[in-house]
Amino acid sequence: MSKYVSVEHLKYLLHEVHGMDEMFRLSRYREYDSESIDMLLDSIRQFSDKELFPYLKEMDEFGAKYENGSITAHPQIERIMRQAGENGFICSHFDYDEGGSQMPYMVGIAANFITTAANNSAVGYMSLTAGAAGLIRSFGSKEQFEEYVPNMVAGKWGGTMALTEPQAGSSLSDIVTSARENQDGSYKITGQKIFISSGDHQCVENIVHLVLARIEGAPAGTKGISLFIVPKKRMNADRVLVSNDVFTAGEYDKMGQRAYVTTHLVFGEQNNCKGWLVGEANMGLKYMFQMMNGARLEVGLTGAAIASAAYYASLQYAKERPQGRKLDGSGGKNLNEPQTLIINHPDVRRMLMLQKAIVEGSASLLLLCAKYLDLSHNGETEEERRKNHLLVELLTPVAKTYPSEMGIVSISNGMQVLGGYGFTTDFPLEQYYRDVRITAIYEGTTGIQSLDLLGRKMTMHNGQAVRELIVEISNTMNDASTFDELKPYAEQLQLAVQSTEQVLMHLMSFAMKGQFEKFLADATIFMEFFGTTVIGWQWLAMALSAKKALVTEQMKRSTDFYESQIHAMKFYFKYELTKTKGLAETLLNTEQLTTVEKERAMSLFE
Amino acid sequence: MSKYVSVEHLKYLLHEVHGMDEMFRLSRYREYDSESIDMLLDSIRQFSDKELFPYLKEMDEFGAKYENGSITAHPQIERIMRQAGENGFICSHFDYDEGGSQMPYMVGIAANFITTAANNSAVGYMSLTAGAAGLIRSFGSKEQFEEYVPNMVAGKWGGTMALTEPQAGSSLSDIVTSARENQDGSYKITGQKIFISSGDHQCVENIVHLVLARIEGAPAGTKGISLFIVPKKRMNADRVLVSNDVFTAGEYDKMGQRAYVTTHLVFGEQNNCKGWLVGEANMGLKYMFQMMNGARLEVGLTGAAIASAAYYASLQYAKERPQGRKLDGSGGKNLNEPQTLIINHPDVRRMLMLQKAIVEGSASLLLLCAKYLDLSHNGETEEERRKNHLLVELLTPVAKTYPSEMGIVSISNGMQVLGGYGFTTDFPLEQYYRDVRITAIYEGTTGIQSLDLLGRKMTMHNGQAVRELIVEISNTMNDASTFDELKPYAEQLQLAVQSTEQVLMHLMSFAMKGQFEKFLADATIFMEFFGTTVIGWQWLAMALSAKKALVTEQMKRSTDFYESQIHAMKFYFKYELTKTKGLAETLLNTEQLTTVEKERAMSLFE
Repeated sequence: MSKYVSVEHLKYLLHEVHGMDEMFRLSRYREYDSESIDMLLDSIRQFSDKELFPYLKEMDEFGAKYENGSITAHPQIERIMRQAGENGFICSHFDYDEGGSQMPYMVGIAANFITTAANNSAVGYMSLTAGAAGLIRSFGSKEQFEEYVPNMVAGKWGGTMALTEPQAGSSLSDIVTSARENQDGSYKITGQKIFISSGDHQCVENIVHLVLARIEGAPAGTKGISLFIVPKKRMNADRVLVSNDVFTAGEYDKMGQRAYVTTHLVFGEQNNCKGWLVGEANMGLKYMFQMMNGARLEVGLTGAAIASAAYYASLQYAKERPQGRKLDGSGGKNLNEPQTLIINHPDVRRMLMLQKAIVEGSASLLLLCAKYLDLSHNGETEEERRKNHLLVELLTPVAKTYPSEMGIVSISNGMQVLGGYGFTTDFPLEQYYRDVRITAIYEGTTGIQSLDLLGRKMTMHNGQAVRELIVEISNTMNDASTFDELKPYAEQLQLAVQSTEQVLMHLMSFAMKGQFEKFLADATIFMEFFGTTVIGWQWLAMALSAKKALVTEQMKRSTDFYESQIHAMKFYFKYELTKTKGLAETLLNTEQLTTVEKERAMSLFE
Repeated sequence: MSKYVSVEHLKYLLHEVHGMDEMFRLSRYREYDSESIDMLLDSIRQFSDKELFPYLKEMDEFGAKYENGSITAHPQIERIMRQAGENGFICSHFDYDEGGSQMPYMVGIAANFITTAANNSAVGYMSLTAGAAGLIRSFGSKEQFEEYVPNMVAGKWGGTMALTEPQAGSSLSDIVTSARENQDGSYKITGQKIFISSGDHQCVENIVHLVLARIEGAPAGTKGISLFIVPKKRMNADRVLVSNDVFTAGEYDKMGQRAYVTTHLVFGEQNNCKGWLVGEANMGLKYMFQMMNGARLEVGLTGAAIASAAYYASLQYAKERPQGRKLDGSGGKNLNEPQTLIINHPDVRRMLMLQKAIVEGSASLLLLCAKYLDLSHNGETEEERRKNHLLVELLTPVAKTYPSEMGIVSISNGMQVLGGYGFTTDFPLEQYYRDVRITAIYEGTTGIQSLDLLGRKMTMHNGQAVRELIVEISNTMNDASTFDELKPYAEQLQLAVQSTEQVLMHLMSFAMKGQFEKFLADATIFMEFFGTTVIGWQWLAMALSAKKALVTEQMKRSTDFYESQIHAMKFYFKYELTKTKGLAETLLNTEQLTTVEKERAMSLFE
């Protein structure tokens, strides 16, 4: 079987770089230890090898078929959902008495990295089910939990999160799906939702939609949005599932993730769609956003995991394909030499190393964010929870965006390694290239994430989050500086951090003058700048742990493994971190070229 | 009909920026004038509107179907070939007495920009036919010309260029297709060629393959490669077309350009395939490379033209789609305001302006290279031909690579403007995104182009070409510096040029020590650095012509048009040219991270 993920590197991140094992001190995780985590990851890998990876291509070719109001997905989805349910993979972070295994969120993310690298479309069905079940668990009543969640945990029922409407898109304050209270305490739901992932298919017995809607008379904007459970089929008085008037109006034919159905749903066309309010009225968006950090990490993970699969596919090709000759010596012209493997060409090595730098750098940030998220809920002290909450709030938009955007770049480099073959359907690169592109769009586009990062997260609590982050980065830099080999890189990172502070000061000056458009006009450029710096930090941390292992000779893995970490860090600093210079220059440039002078709104584009 | 190209901008480039009208002094072009060129471009646009653009999507969906050794392409291809032949579009640069209209190459490139923006897959059939006919015209005998070319000019027969073999890929010195002389002066051809675009389909009566092969006993390597005409069907003694034993072994199913067939051909499986030598033996690669500049410009053009179509599709969406509210004033929260059009959001404007900067910057470089290429053949003096030859040799790899690589980025931004819709097949962005990706691969990948640029073109004639280029750039900078508004940008470009000289000096020092692998290891980074600088020059030139028109009030176009050129230049300098700083830093960094230390060839990637 082809390799699509390095479980070894995930274990390295968990145990050596990010101190997963510290988490076992928490009472919630006392039944875990290092070995049980490793065994779990190995079993996830086996499951993925057997049930997920072999179906990647045929599921893409099958796509999803819409006919007469219902959608047929690839039948393997049913088997995957059931098997995942039986193995406890869907809601593993739930409490023991909720059907979960109280798995640390970091481990859940590592596990999802493996499954997603194996088959990203298939994993979507599980993740969304977990997300919807998580909303009911966090904000629903005990009765609601019992009615819906056990079947979702078991993989018998699916779940969705239904936010987007045709006229509103990213602007959630403009949603109009309505809810009117019935006499029985349920609500009559009427409206349309688009782009609903896993919104309808034959592979589960029922689908539980978590729907944002407005109760009639609620305040305008985001303050009047409530959250409802709206199942595809509801229980009648005899506890039999009957239609709940959720009509599937269509399936979007997409460039990638073709096995992951994307639906257009119409609620209440027959005036007979019932929903049940989750938690309090008008709190819907707040509830949804409490789940959003997790959902956004999952999307970033999808970007990085697909890039992982693409990396290993291109690496395998580069190790097997002879072409051309080495330049040194004969200048590449000695035809008596056999052709060399293309992995020996520097440009191919650059493309491979770039992929490694993006994939492993992204994985590191994702696992770290998972740790922060976990400790923001389960930390022992108020202070620990507060600090970790700030850090995960700050870094989540980065952990969503960097792996998505750079995952696209990474896979494009993977395809390039294969040359013309990469463009054909004989190799998986073209599918990865199509699949990954959506990650920069869903759960909030890169533009939305960037507004969140700069406009909300950088300024929250008077910039407390970014100060906490700089403390964390400084700790890594200080520690790295004690090793001669790493010191120059710590210094290079220090310059990037100083540059970040300078850029922030400059941009904040617009915000303080109330010039919000100027403040945020280059938010996406700021995201690229900041993300590149943050991943530089992750690489320094990975190299530092490797260096420590090499120096102390307390090596859990091979010398090659640790040396490759230090090498990839140097690569990142030479080829990627250097980009921050030009980006800072762009951000400090005061020309306003994208804000609107009214009279030229359109004419500049002719 | 949706807009897919700005013919106005092409006319601006031809007449105002690049001095097309100077060409009319040449005797070859004396029957042309400014008005006739404009009328011709308008007629090409009408042809494209009618025969090309409407079929874009259905041709993609149809793809190409392989069955029992033959391939069925979309039937509209036949109509396009015939119409193009009848209208004289296929080989328009040929002499009048060869069936051409002696069209200046610049105009041919502008015309192809329009047709390719309309339907890139369809145009491939015409371009390759023109390329193959051009090879026969330049290097074949009079008899060969008469036997094949008239039917190709007329669009009745197609043509291909057959270079790539399974075991050789980009390494042409390793091709093994063989030729043994027959008694009748023809050659018996045996071998396989892969990735042959338009290699077989039912839309023409015959296909003329221009094949690289080795005559038995020829020297090894590139010096033993000859060029042959190998038609799909040959004329028998009765002047009837009969099979020439060219078997179509397969069709590659590809991610994009699905309507452009890509074949695997087997020559001489029945021992009955005849080829006819073109020109002299063992000169095949040299002949092929004399056509290569044109072919590479066509590929760059394809990247830019698809990006043009994507730009206008996303621009149209941005002008029609309301979503969210302006940030200034209420901070985007005043729900009583109607939603604003997304073109008013700075991040959307940035994505649109970036596309404009890439598309128009690329078009400018392509037309300039076309002018150099034309003058390298048709210039009045030896000195004029020599200088233009150097410039086109130097800039062709850039004009192939920048539009290809940045075309990918451009279209990705176009897709992002549409959000989730961009990922669906309801809009054309996803097709453009798939189609454009091949341009960075064929006719020599970006890696190959970069080796050519740094390893061959920068050093040829002791660096004379780059010195000529710097004179050209300096002329533009000096001229621009006379305008206060443009002066700061001329100075910024000057810094980038100085940085180029510094980087070159640094890299050349490796070459002088015979360290070719170190010299060329970062050739692709150098390409990005140099290409970004060259396009900066093009933008300064476009802004300069606009400024002159505005200042002298001799305006052929609207004030808005000219102002948009100056605005886009400023955008390019703020957001794109700034990237050269980090790239220079990477190139000056002496760490060797991608060259091979033998003992770690593989282990670094684990």
